[in-house]
Amino acid sequence: MRYFKLVLLFLFITTTSIAQKLMGFTDAMAVKQVDWEKQFDGQLSAKNQDTWMQFLTSHPHHIGSPQGKINADYMAGLFKSWGFQTELAEYNVLFPTPKTRLLELLGSKPYKAKLEESILKEDKTSGQKAEQLPSYNAYSADGDVTAELVFVNRGIPADYDELERMGVSVKGKIVIAKYGGSWRGIKPKVAAEHGAIGCIIYSDPEDDGYAQGDVYPEGAFRPKDGVQRGSVMDMPVYPGDPLTPGVGATKDAKRLNRNEAITLMKIPVLPISYEDALPLLQSLKGPVVPAAWRGGLPITYHAGPSLDKVHLKLQFNWDIKTLYNVIAKLPGSELPDEWIIRGNHHDGWVNGAADPISGMVAEMDEARAIGELVKKGFKLKRTLVYCAWDGEEQGLLGSTEWAEDHQEELRKKAVAYVNTDGNSRGFIGAAGSHTLEPFFNEIANDVIDPQTGVSIKERKYASVFVSADKAGRTKLMGNKNIKLGALGAGSDWSGFLKFLGIASLNLGFGGEGSGGEYHSIYDSYDHFVKFKDPGFQYGVALSKTAGRVMMRMANAEVLPIDVNSMYKTVNEYVTELKTLLETSRTETEQENKMIQDKLYDLAKDPKKGIQTPKTKEAVPFLNFSGLENAMMQLKTSTEEFQKLYGNSTQLSADKQKELNEILFKVERSLINEKGLPRRSWYKHQIYAPGYYTGYGVKTLPGIREAIEERNWKEAQENIEIVSRTMEAYTSQVQQAINLLIKKPF
Amino acid sequence: MRYFKLVLLFLFITTTSIAQKLMGFTDAMAVKQVDWEKQFDGQLSAKNQDTWMQFLTSHPHHIGSPQGKINADYMAGLFKSWGFQTELAEYNVLFPTPKTRLLELLGSKPYKAKLEESILKEDKTSGQKAEQLPSYNAYSADGDVTAELVFVNRGIPADYDELERMGVSVKGKIVIAKYGGSWRGIKPKVAAEHGAIGCIIYSDPEDDGYAQGDVYPEGAFRPKDGVQRGSVMDMPVYPGDPLTPGVGATKDAKRLNRNEAITLMKIPVLPISYEDALPLLQSLKGPVVPAAWRGGLPITYHAGPSLDKVHLKLQFNWDIKTLYNVIAKLPGSELPDEWIIRGNHHDGWVNGAADPISGMVAEMDEARAIGELVKKGFKLKRTLVYCAWDGEEQGLLGSTEWAEDHQEELRKKAVAYVNTDGNSRGFIGAAGSHTLEPFFNEIANDVIDPQTGVSIKERKYASVFVSADKAGRTKLMGNKNIKLGALGAGSDWSGFLKFLGIASLNLGFGGEGSGGEYHSIYDSYDHFVKFKDPGFQYGVALSKTAGRVMMRMANAEVLPIDVNSMYKTVNEYVTELKTLLETSRTETEQENKMIQDKLYDLAKDPKKGIQTPKTKEAVPFLNFSGLENAMMQLKTSTEEFQKLYGNSTQLSADKQKELNEILFKVERSLINEKGLPRRSWYKHQIYAPGYYTGYGVKTLPGIREAIEERNWKEAQENIEIVSRTMEAYTSQVQQAINLLIKKPF
Repeated sequence: MRYFKLVLLFLFITTTSIAQKLMGFTDAMAVKQVDWEKQFDGQLSAKNQDTWMQFLTSHPHHIGSPQGKINADYMAGLFKSWGFQTELAEYNVLFPTPKTRLLELLGSKPYKAKLEESILKEDKTSGQKAEQLPSYNAYSADGDVTAELVFVNRGIPADYDELERMGVSVKGKIVIAKYGGSWRGIKPKVAAEHGAIGCIIYSDPEDDGYAQGDVYPEGAFRPKDGVQRGSVMDMPVYPGDPLTPGVGATKDAKRLNRNEAITLMKIPVLPISYEDALPLLQSLKGPVVPAAWRGGLPITYHAGPSLDKVHLKLQFNWDIKTLYNVIAKLPGSELPDEWIIRGNHHDGWVNGAADPISGMVAEMDEARAIGELVKKGFKLKRTLVYCAWDGEEQGLLGSTEWAEDHQEELRKKAVAYVNTDGNSRGFIGAAGSHTLEPFFNEIANDVIDPQTGVSIKERKYASVFVSADKAGRTKLMGNKNIKLGALGAGSDWSGFLKFLGIASLNLGFGGEGSGGEYHSIYDSYDHFVKFKDPGFQYGVALSKTAGRVMMRMANAEVLPIDVNSMYKTVNEYVTELKTLLETSRTETEQENKMIQDKLYDLAKDPKKGIQTPKTKEAVPFLNFSGLENAMMQLKTSTEEFQKLYGNSTQLSADKQKELNEILFKVERSLINEKGLPRRSWYKHQIYAPGYYTGYGVKTLPGIREAIEERNWKEAQENIEIVSRTMEAYTSQVQQAINLLIKKPF
Repeated sequence: MRYFKLVLLFLFITTTSIAQKLMGFTDAMAVKQVDWEKQFDGQLSAKNQDTWMQFLTSHPHHIGSPQGKINADYMAGLFKSWGFQTELAEYNVLFPTPKTRLLELLGSKPYKAKLEESILKEDKTSGQKAEQLPSYNAYSADGDVTAELVFVNRGIPADYDELERMGVSVKGKIVIAKYGGSWRGIKPKVAAEHGAIGCIIYSDPEDDGYAQGDVYPEGAFRPKDGVQRGSVMDMPVYPGDPLTPGVGATKDAKRLNRNEAITLMKIPVLPISYEDALPLLQSLKGPVVPAAWRGGLPITYHAGPSLDKVHLKLQFNWDIKTLYNVIAKLPGSELPDEWIIRGNHHDGWVNGAADPISGMVAEMDEARAIGELVKKGFKLKRTLVYCAWDGEEQGLLGSTEWAEDHQEELRKKAVAYVNTDGNSRGFIGAAGSHTLEPFFNEIANDVIDPQTGVSIKERKYASVFVSADKAGRTKLMGNKNIKLGALGAGSDWSGFLKFLGIASLNLGFGGEGSGGEYHSIYDSYDHFVKFKDPGFQYGVALSKTAGRVMMRMANAEVLPIDVNSMYKTVNEYVTELKTLLETSRTETEQENKMIQDKLYDLAKDPKKGIQTPKTKEAVPFLNFSGLENAMMQLKTSTEEFQKLYGNSTQLSADKQKELNEILFKVERSLINEKGLPRRSWYKHQIYAPGYYTGYGVKTLPGIREAIEERNWKEAQENIEIVSRTMEAYTSQVQQAINLLIKKPF
């Protein structure tokens, strides 16, 4: 008995004596912060998330819909009740909706596409037909075209190279492309560049249907008539309202004419189900496609063209609609002009339960819990700004317009932007500015996975390790650091990160809630609670994770930013680019030699009309020395800074404020006001959505895409631009170092 | 005008002055030989091949069929007319044919399998229903079983490991497996080892149906009711008549009882079409299968078991049937007791046009042309033996029984065995004993590809290069040597190579005549001339290639055998095995650590009943030093021999004869009379069909399979056996060296 007490005493001592270290906090402050975090966890409620999701998804809630406005008001009311200063921020944006949708196969076996998703008795909102947006691609052109059909696989540039080898042209044709392999807007864009006059995009069951698993409602996957709606705005050029690039789409904003808006698609484009795609694909003649192009339909996939023609007629109402962002602030007590911004969109394509309400209710619960803590005396140094964005689905409209509208203020005040979107059962996913990587890892260590009882970091490591190949496993062995992904253009961080240079983070769980509901009428409450996150355990885990990010960032004495992590990551990108250039050179040499040696001619089947590829210009050597020198200086500076960072909490309050301002503005030095080639809106020099991949991020995009496009002059120019960007970053870091060296504590 | 004549004269001089070198020929003899080869080419006739194919495929010609005997007599008559001493060699073998075939799905959605291929008006022999062998697997067990169904992917051991992780057992169940990924007989064998009581094998359209291309008769590929017949004899244990292992199945041979024949399958097994497979696969419940298991049917593939039961009833007539090999000899004038043997089978599963008649008619045309040359005065030093084998399809019956029956004579006389089988448009494929690699390459350089006008070697290089990945291309750059494949158990070389140690070569064109006719009623003349080799251009090319092999081998002064090529290839295998062991060790360590660290437990979805793999015994280090020393000696000897080989044509006739005997018998030293572990019939130590892959060859099989099966004691024992085999080979080479060093010219 006595022994037992001693053990307890010992445990007590060891527990309290290992006070948790938090980046940017003194030990004393860290103890308090961790204690508040425990109370925060206790406040979170799966039941709230469930209730709110039921309300918010009860009717279709796309931009301009009655339920959209109801939801905005509902959330604004809640934020207010939790102690937030709340407003609706309205913008007026171009939002086309379909007037006519007609797709038919003409000829001997005519077929008229159904373009309609079935009502299911197992899904109670699937029957809200009058309120649903029909299946369509927003920002498609109006058009009435009739032509032969050609199958273009994913519809990316490489597919057209392959079609050329097969001797198939899309000029004057309508193309049909599979979803996947690129952001959907790339497909009609590249098709139009190759002379196609219309574009159909369908969900192949191999990627998004019965091949993946049992279909809804029996299983989670896309049924035969399920359609993926989605925007085909040319977002890699600029996101947001097509008529007001760079400025907020306020009532009085100067607007472009529609024909000046270069992000509108130039040809008509329509998404369809695999049931509707089947007769179209069956009509194709011409060569059998390469194995990698095949889908899961029970047919021989041919490239086309079809003998029979396809008729596609699309007309839209080109309305200006009002969108409603909810902006809710909890002002900081010490540094009210340093903002930590949190956002998730609230609009859905239809009832949008997983996308976006699963993330939205986690954000709301997090806001409510912080509000409760504040009522109990929790002090926030910095201001928290909680946002619910409208119009994300059509092209990040709400967040982009708000960021553009408040650009001056945000440049001054925004410390970081933390985004979430769809969420489901599984493993933490995180991407963002690499200065935030050690900070995020600290948090991932502190949040417990609801299914296994280990930290979400441990579980993520297990998942990454098990799915890695042998080489990957050897590399991962013992290194549990979660590497942040680079951010492309998938959600609302674009305006903050890419346009304004605000350090951003995107968070979400997933991997065990896969399904085929995406952008269909089946992304419903019924589907969500059956397949995505039954019991909202991962909704709560997301609140815990993002809530810690917000609270620690709000209260850190010195902002938890690690500039050396940024250096290390960018240095990897530089190495990648040098390798890319080398590989491109050796491959070009080899390929040209193969053509000259007639190996393609000899290897091909002379009975098939296969074209030999054309020789390509040799790949020159580029001068990386400026960039390499800049990276060397950056390495020295960032390493020195991180050595000194540990002492930074001992700085005087004034010096700390000065240091913090350098730290959160250091991301701004990655911005080049001229922007990237051919898309000046994208100003960040490290991350951009791929011009020809869309969602898919391109790192060091100015250099990388020039190399990929074999534009050597532009590649060299962009190497210089990035070098200067790195020098500017180094000089910011140097200022921070000077502050710390000259410290009067 | 005068200038022109000078140029012509110059051309004449250069052409004649570059006399072609032939391995094993003096320059003078080479000139003559090449001249005869040109005449040989001139004799070949696509029209003959076409005519013979029409005759030989006019009716089903499987073992025991009327047309089978008619074909044997027809070919024997032709060989005789071409000057060959011809006989029919008869054997009496166990050949079961179906009495009852019933497969049905019971329960709520009953389905009775059709088990019948459609008559097509475009295919004139498809309607010969009364003469066709129905679709079945020869040497299946009789049985009447009813049980739940489980899908086992390819049905190889790794698939059962995966099923175990999914928590699915096949004990007492009927399994359904996709064709492909192994020799078909492996599937029921492994199923039975795991406790299954029946086995269904089907052709998935992903591998062998509409996914590959348009189906017959529109295209070449397998239609929905096409079935792949085939043997499921346990050939990796021994091929040939199950009742007479090791001896010829003559009338009076001592026979095993059927229940003693271990190559008979232990459970009932039936091949079906994908049309018949669909309802069965749709009846499966249980986990969704891994992506790699999916096929091309428009369903979600589940592992099972099914709720509803499957009823499989099979009964066979277990008859002894007579088979007819055609054996045709053209005796050598100088060395009649040195035999060059050539073979192709003549039996088909049904009308068998591609398999085997396309190769058979090429062999016949080759024999006829050589016969013509002989009539014109062409002298053959050695004896040519041309064979047409019966009963290949059921398990290499005809060739194996003949090789077993004549084993004593063959051990003494057989120089080499040259096999062909199906042939179609495309690229030369060659596999065999690696001593023949330089010789084969010399020939591949001399045969012109009919479609491109370059040598078949150039075209093969182009094809291999273009399909290689980047690393493969770098390796291939400039190295046009055609690497011979290693021989497994796919056709009639087994008795010669694996049982007797006779150097063998298998030749055939392919790659541009792919289709889905294999072992179905659609492997017909109509299919062949439309899709496989229209105009028989590649039939003629095959005659040119194999004919050169036969004629050069018959007339070489010193046999064109390169022992250093054998060394180099085996040395690669040894390196592979050491790597295999190392890889197995590091992977086992890593896997065990992953299990101990609970990474599998943490990474798995707790809602699915996934089992964590079990830790495995650590992989020990094995002693390769004996083998490495043997390989070092072999390297020295074979390099020395090949340096001396160039002078060998200057040896006296007696010494040459002595050298030749060493050279053709050197392959015999790769034989170990005890055979491989658990299958003493397979005596060759370098090549064997995989015990668990079947067709798929295993090189250095005694060592490799022991490592794969983690039987370390057996692996070490087999390292010693192979070491001694290599020493024996070296001592043969050393004798040849002594002959050449002590040469009195």
